[in-house]
This record gives sequence, C-alpha cells and structure tokens, in this order.
Amino acid sequence: MTAAELWKRYKKHLCKVTPLGFTLDISRMDFPDGFLKSMEPAMQDAFAAMDQLEAGAIANPDEGRMVGHYWLRNADLAPKPELQKAIRDTVEDVKAFATAIHKKDIIPPNAAKFTDVLSIGIGGSALGPQLVSDALGVKRDKMKMHFIDNTDTDGIHRTLEGLGSKLKSTLVLVISKSGGTPEPRNGMIEAEAYFKAKGHVFSKHAVAITGDGSKLDEHAKSNGWLKRFPMWDWVGGRTSVMATVGLVPMALQGIDIQKFLDGAAKMDGATREPTTKKNPAALLALMWHHATNGKGDKDMVVLPYKDRLLLFSRYLQQLVMESLGKEHDLNGNVVEQGIAVYGNKGSTDQHAYVQQLRDGVDNFFVTFVVGLQDTARPLKPEDAVEVDPGVTAGDYLNGFWQGTRTALYDKGRGSVTITVKKVDVQTLGALIALYERAVGFYATLVNINAYHQPGVEAGKKAAAAVLDVQHAAVSKLTDTPQTADDLANAIGNPDAAEPIHHIMEHLAANKRVKKSGSKYSAL
Amino acid sequence: MTAAELWKRYKKHLCKVTPLGFTLDISRMDFPDGFLKSMEPAMQDAFAAMDQLEAGAIANPDEGRMVGHYWLRNADLAPKPELQKAIRDTVEDVKAFATAIHKKDIIPPNAAKFTDVLSIGIGGSALGPQLVSDALGVKRDKMKMHFIDNTDTDGIHRTLEGLGSKLKSTLVLVISKSGGTPEPRNGMIEAEAYFKAKGHVFSKHAVAITGDGSKLDEHAKSNGWLKRFPMWDWVGGRTSVMATVGLVPMALQGIDIQKFLDGAAKMDGATREPTTKKNPAALLALMWHHATNGKGDKDMVVLPYKDRLLLFSRYLQQLVMESLGKEHDLNGNVVEQGIAVYGNKGSTDQHAYVQQLRDGVDNFFVTFVVGLQDTARPLKPEDAVEVDPGVTAGDYLNGFWQGTRTALYDKGRGSVTITVKKVDVQTLGALIALYERAVGFYATLVNINAYHQPGVEAGKKAAAAVLDVQHAAVSKLTDTPQTADDLANAIGNPDAAEPIHHIMEHLAANKRVKKSGSKYSAL
Repeated sequence: MTAAELWKRYKKHLCKVTPLGFTLDISRMDFPDGFLKSMEPAMQDAFAAMDQLEAGAIANPDEGRMVGHYWLRNADLAPKPELQKAIRDTVEDVKAFATAIHKKDIIPPNAAKFTDVLSIGIGGSALGPQLVSDALGVKRDKMKMHFIDNTDTDGIHRTLEGLGSKLKSTLVLVISKSGGTPEPRNGMIEAEAYFKAKGHVFSKHAVAITGDGSKLDEHAKSNGWLKRFPMWDWVGGRTSVMATVGLVPMALQGIDIQKFLDGAAKMDGATREPTTKKNPAALLALMWHHATNGKGDKDMVVLPYKDRLLLFSRYLQQLVMESLGKEHDLNGNVVEQGIAVYGNKGSTDQHAYVQQLRDGVDNFFVTFVVGLQDTARPLKPEDAVEVDPGVTAGDYLNGFWQGTRTALYDKGRGSVTITVKKVDVQTLGALIALYERAVGFYATLVNINAYHQPGVEAGKKAAAAVLDVQHAAVSKLTDTPQTADDLANAIGNPDAAEPIHHIMEHLAANKRVKKSGSKYSAL
Repeated sequence: MTAAELWKRYKKHLCKVTPLGFTLDISRMDFPDGFLKSMEPAMQDAFAAMDQLEAGAIANPDEGRMVGHYWLRNADLAPKPELQKAIRDTVEDVKAFATAIHKKDIIPPNAAKFTDVLSIGIGGSALGPQLVSDALGVKRDKMKMHFIDNTDTDGIHRTLEGLGSKLKSTLVLVISKSGGTPEPRNGMIEAEAYFKAKGHVFSKHAVAITGDGSKLDEHAKSNGWLKRFPMWDWVGGRTSVMATVGLVPMALQGIDIQKFLDGAAKMDGATREPTTKKNPAALLALMWHHATNGKGDKDMVVLPYKDRLLLFSRYLQQLVMESLGKEHDLNGNVVEQGIAVYGNKGSTDQHAYVQQLRDGVDNFFVTFVVGLQDTARPLKPEDAVEVDPGVTAGDYLNGFWQGTRTALYDKGRGSVTITVKKVDVQTLGALIALYERAVGFYATLVNINAYHQPGVEAGKKAAAAVLDVQHAAVSKLTDTPQTADDLANAIGNPDAAEPIHHIMEHLAANKRVKKSGSKYSAL
C-alpha cells in the first residue's frame, strides 16, 4: 500500500476509548477488506458468551466455577448481594489496613514502623504484584517491595539477606489460594526460619492472603498473624491482580488502588461495546485470530516503548498462554491451541532481537504500546533536557517506535499499536482489563475454556512423584555404595533408575549423600 | 520409549565437560538414530570454519572484520602480537582501575568513595552487564549496579532519582562503540545535566568505554573524564561481555573477572573438540537444527531452574536472534533464518505458561538449565531448612524440573538439559562461551553470517527519517491550526501525513504544540 492508503487505513480502523486517552491501531495488520465482516457472527457469539460470564454463568465448566474478575472493579455486576458486599468490604478493608500500617497503628515488635514488604507467592500471586510494583514504583513509595517467587534455596536466601537491616521492619505477605502450593509454602517456611534465626517473631510480621479455611488460613489463624485477606474461588490466579492478591501490596506501596480499579472499569465499559469496530478487545482478539490463523501459528511479540512496562509481556505470557494454551476445545476435540508471547521493551529490544524480527523467520506479529506523555508527571523544568536543538530523548523514543513499525511493515511483518496518554495507575488497570477481555473473546472464537489450567496440575503430580521416589531411594541408602539402578531395584521400581540418578546427583552435590564414581552411599 | 530405553539413551548421549562439572543431555530430543551421522559432514565444515575464525579470518565478510571474542579469554590465540598485548594489558588495566576505585585512590569530589555504578549503554553494552550483575550480585558487593538502557525520559529519570543520596558517590560508565548510537548518547546527556543540576561535576564521575577516536572518546578526552577504556572493532556488541564492556562493571562490582574468563576458556577448550558427540556446542547446534528443521520452525524456550539465571534467556535473545535472524545466506539467497528465544525461570514459569507448553501449540523445544548445588556457597547451618522431613526447598526445585521434563516428553515436546555443578562466576563464563560457540556452529550449518546485523541499521535510518520529518514539520507550525495533512503538504512531503500525525500527538501530549481537534499550532 502507498503511504496515502496506509494513512487512510489508519484513520478508517482507529479504535478510540476517549475517557482513557486510548487508541488501538490495527492498520498495519494485513487483514483483507472482508475479514471483519466474515468474523462478525463469531464475534457476536463471543460477546454473548462474555455477557453470560459477567452475569455469573459457570464459565469455567471443567472446574464448575463462575469467573468473576470483572466484578472486582464493578461490584454491582456480581450476581449475588453477598458477593457484592464482600467485594466492596474487602476493598475498604485493604485500604484501611494499608493506612494503619502507614500511620504506624500497626508496627513490628522491633522497629518504629514497617518500611518494606516481602511478598511470597508464585504465578498469578507474583506476576501481577511484580508488574504493578515495577511499572508504578517511584523513589518516594511508602514501602519498598521485595519478592520470593520460587522454591530456589539460593534465590530465597538472596532476597532475605538483601533485606539486611530492614528485616525487622519488613511486612511479609504470604499469598496462596490453597496454601498447599509448594513454592509459596516453602518460601514461607524459609522466611519463618530466617526471621526466627535473626531474633524476630514471624507472626508479628505476617499477613496471609488465601482462601477461607485453607491450610494457610488455619496456619495464620492459629499462629496469630497480623491479618488475613480472602482469595475467592471465582477469581483465577492469572486475573487476581484486582483482587486482594494485587490490591494489598499495591496499597501498601502507596498506590491508589481505586484509580487502578477505575481504569479497569472504564476499559470494561469500552470492551462491552457490541459494535466490533468500536471495541478494542474485540479487534485485538480478531487480529490475533487473523495473525495466527486461529491456531497460534505466529508468536505475539509485545514491545512497549516505555521502561515502566518492561514486565508487561511477562504478565501477558501468563494471562495469554495459560488461558489459551489448551489441548482440548469445549467439545473435547484435541486442538492444541495457544499463542506464544514474548518481548521486553523498545527501543532497547531493537538492539537485541529486532534484527530477527525484521530480516529473519516470519513467525510473529508485534504489539507496540506507546505512551504519549514522556513522563506520567511533568518533569521539573531543570530536568527537561534537549539532547539536540528542539529534540528530547522522548522524541527519539517516538521516532524509534515509528521507524520500527515502518521497517517491519515494509518487510511484511504485521503490528498493532496501542497508544495511551500516559503510563500511570489508571492506564495500567485499563491495559490489564483490555487483555483480560481480549483473551476471553479469543477463547470463544476458538471454542476453548480460558479459565482452567489442567496442565499445571500434571506438572505438580509429576514433581510429587519425584519426591516420593527420593524418599524411597534415600531410605535404601546404606554404607555400601549402590548405583542408581541398584537403588531403583531396591525400591522395587526399576523404571525409576534415571530419576534416582538425577536425585542422587543433586543430593551428592549438596553433600547429603556420598558419591564414588556412579555409586551412592549414606553419609 | 520405555523408561529403561530413555535411561539408556540418556547415558549413551550424555556429553560431559568434567573440568567444569558440566553435562549436556540431549536424550529427550526425538532425533532418530542416523541423525548425528547424517549431519557429520556439515558439522565438520562448521568446525573448520570456526578454526579459521579463531585464527583471524574475515569471518564477518559484510563488514570486512575479524571475529575475535574467543581471543578475549585466551590472548595467545589472537593472530597478531599487538592484539595479544592489547588484550592482556586491558584486563590488567581493568583490574587496576577497579582496585584504585575500591581502595579510594580515585574518589569523587563530594564523597569519601565511589559506592555505586551507573552503566549507560544499550544492546550488547547493557545485556551482558545486566546478566552478570543479576546472576552474581550479592548484598556484600563492593559496588551496587544501576542501568540506563533506553532513550525513555521517564526511565532515565527514574534511575537517576533512584540514586538519591548516592548520586554524589556514583561512578558513571558510558558504553558505546561509536559514541553515535542515540540511546546511550541521550542517556549521557541526561545524566550530565542531572549531575550538574545537583551540583556535581559529571566529568569527575565519568568513564568512557568506546572505540578509539570515536565521538565519545573525543568527548571524554576533551572533558577530562576519569578514564577511557577501549572497544575493539573485532568484538561484536553481542559478544562483548568478556571485553571491557562486561569486565569493567564486573570488576567494579567486585566479581573475579579472571574466573569469568577462565570459565569461558575452559568451555572454549571443550567446544574445540572435533569429535561431535564429545562437543556440547556442536550437539546443541545440531539439536537446534533438528528441532527447527534448520529453518527456525520452533522457538527455543530457555528455562533455568535457578533464580540467578533469570536474565539468561534475555541475554540469549540477543546472542541467538541477532546472530541467526538473517534475511540472506552467505550466497545471497533469501532464507529468512533465525530462532525465536524466550523464557524466564523454573519452577516459576510452570505457574505461568508451561500450561501452554504442555498442552498447547507444539511450536517450541525447551532448554533446561539445572544447578546441582542449591547455593553457590554453602549455607550457614542455621539457614539450612527442611521444608518437610528430610526435604529441602532445593529438592522441590529439582523435582519440578524432572517433573516438567517428563510431562513435556510424555506429550512429545522435546528438551535438552544443561546441568552445572553450581551457578557461579566460572559457570556463567562457561555458559556464555557455550552459546557463543553453538551460535557460530549453527550459522555455518545454515550458511549465514552470524556476526553482522544489517536490520538494526535499517531501523536506525527509519527513526532518523522520522526525526527529520519532525524538524521540518515543527518549523511549519504557526498560530493557525493545521492538520497533519496540511503540515505534510507544507513540507512538500504529502506521504508524511501519518508520521506527522504521530509526531504532533506526541508533542501535544507533552505540551510542546497546541492541539485543537485534529489540528496543531505553535504554542
């Protein structure tokens, strides 16, 4: 297309959400003229399915659950008065708790106030808080965030040691719906031991965010933790950033949670629009469908031209891939769906892998995110620097985005561009809400359940089986050196020779069994 | 295959590098029996090409350059005595400079010593230092690292403001081979202005790492900066972590750069092995070839089960994608090569996107990285915690890796596993060297130049064109509101209407032009 045709196409398809200063540009995707019309019946089905979901249908049939994350920012939508009340009361409770911490109404035993927050959680209980903290954090935050998001001994200890003299003034959030997920449980046990070893009473630092009556809930209650916040079974982990999981750390950091919810609510309003061309989430889902042939044929590269959105792609990896990466469709057919997501930020990534995007294997489409204001708050005059006469660093950033968009288009690589006025708390809420809705629409377009994660359970079971083998094999260690095969036979499971090999190599490296050649014995 | 067959296959193909406590397991890739044999002639060609490269051939023909990153850890290899001397002298110079900073022989004007390092660079001048800093950093580091790696006004100011009271004791590294790359240049200009505004003399904090005689070199010389370190044209940006680019920040942080170089040198020794089955870089390249049909048909998912290697995949995105993502082969044919790389860490990612890897679209292979020792240095006894009787957090991590490897294999998803004794400075050097060599081998297998990046230049030119349009259009702004089309006509370039629209929207959001409807005027 000529420049004039592209400019016309840009204006024709531009989707605006005026209250949010938001636009979605799909002009650089190569969908043909009839595409939107051909998809319209399917899109209307997706709108209808979403209406039912929002009204409280069992939208997650495998787990027999409602899917209520949209209610979190508009409690009126929730299908029962008690849910509405729980949502409203909890938001107020989060605000009140954060205020009590900030005002020193709640203080640690060995310090004048809480200064830092250590969040222990994994998956949806980590990625949202990490995104929010990194995207919105500033030097003057009320509290500084730290994260344990794995069961890596070294990583856990590096984080704990990194707290240094702030340990005594650190508030610990343990986030786990069931309380049984090993990673946060192990992190909690390590943190408890560390606080104790340093002479601090863990329970006087600890807050539980968990399902009512879970193991963690019972543990927190019986140990007299500072506070317990609920996690509801109608909010999935990957959409929990607007529930207590995200709101508690956010409020503690000093971020206005109401503006976050309001940003999402405004985007929800725009993405309930039943006219496809006016609905940015519908258009986004349709672009994914077009780019990937509705089968994940291409990867989604997410390139925000803004440092604060560095973790957005990592957040979307979970939201998109865990929602859409499914073996079966809703009719039980094997479909192996999904869309792979990766990316960091522009223009930085232009100096990393955009070489391949421009010249190499043509297996992706790009989503640019552009923030028009160079800073969310105006710079002080003395900080507003020209790097060339009349040109700012931000002009270069804008130029690099435009240059890359054009360079990719010229090579037949498609892109969509999301433009926001500024990257602030309202915008972040809106962007998350946009993708939550787009994922829901897309799932209907390809007829899958976006709200379960059966493959995660399989991985957990496989890991538990490995630990069972470890227990059994370790019990058979003696002073006589034995091979992995010997130990596998000794436990009556010859098929376990290779897992036992890996287990013993791990134990030997940590000086918990003796190794000589390829044989192992008790210490 | 049965468990017994898999265990046999594991032992048959396991590739060990004993001096490094390193193994590569390719048993879970589904290459058939004859594959390695069928690739052997091509692999021998790759060995021969690598020998020539190491001997100083013009291995980057498009740019007429030698490719010398292997010499950096074994100066004897460099083809000229003056190069050998330059390499050795520079390593000593880096060590001496870091020592002088640590011993307070060099101090800032307004503080007793330098405590922090701000590194300004992008691409290869950022990703290596960021990986090293994150992978090896500990609380007791001699200096704390900070990075500016973009031309994002907000990101730059957040980093500068984040230095707080440490600004006066911050040493600034400006890293840019040409000195003309806009991102580090803009970062430098912003930092200079910020230091000045806070009453500090930038030159007394500043160190240049740049090509001899570059714009940056001249600027540093004429302004009396503390120090200038060389960047050589025979070291590409994405392989510069073992040149001054990586060594200077590393030494300042207090990390033993000699051990880093030694780790790489040991891996180089192992990957010069001409017997394919004993050469881990050759096997890795062959697995990439098998998995992707030598055409990038599948993505490379990198999953280290160790928090410290979180940024390894981001480092590899540049090393692999910028090296292999090429339009033309060495004969000028259009081939559109490359392999997409993404990943974060396990077991964390199991709670994010491993759902899709296991159940969803089958478009990837996985590289696991396992560290056998739970911590690089032994934990204090009081910190060694059992999370269940006889079970540590690290046992769970090992179990999750094994469980995921098995769960993926059971669904026909291939993986390779790299196992290292521990994640320390020597290992990190070795891992980087392994991938450098594998990338070089793979490039020969698919007949491309791994050492240039023509697409990056195209992006820069496109961006420069946008800034030219900005200058022209801004000069035509008057008190009379004009549309983007009006301005495009005014500058005699009607095709620039859309770029001008985006430029004006950006300027208007930053209150640098007046906007009314879709018309723009001067302030």
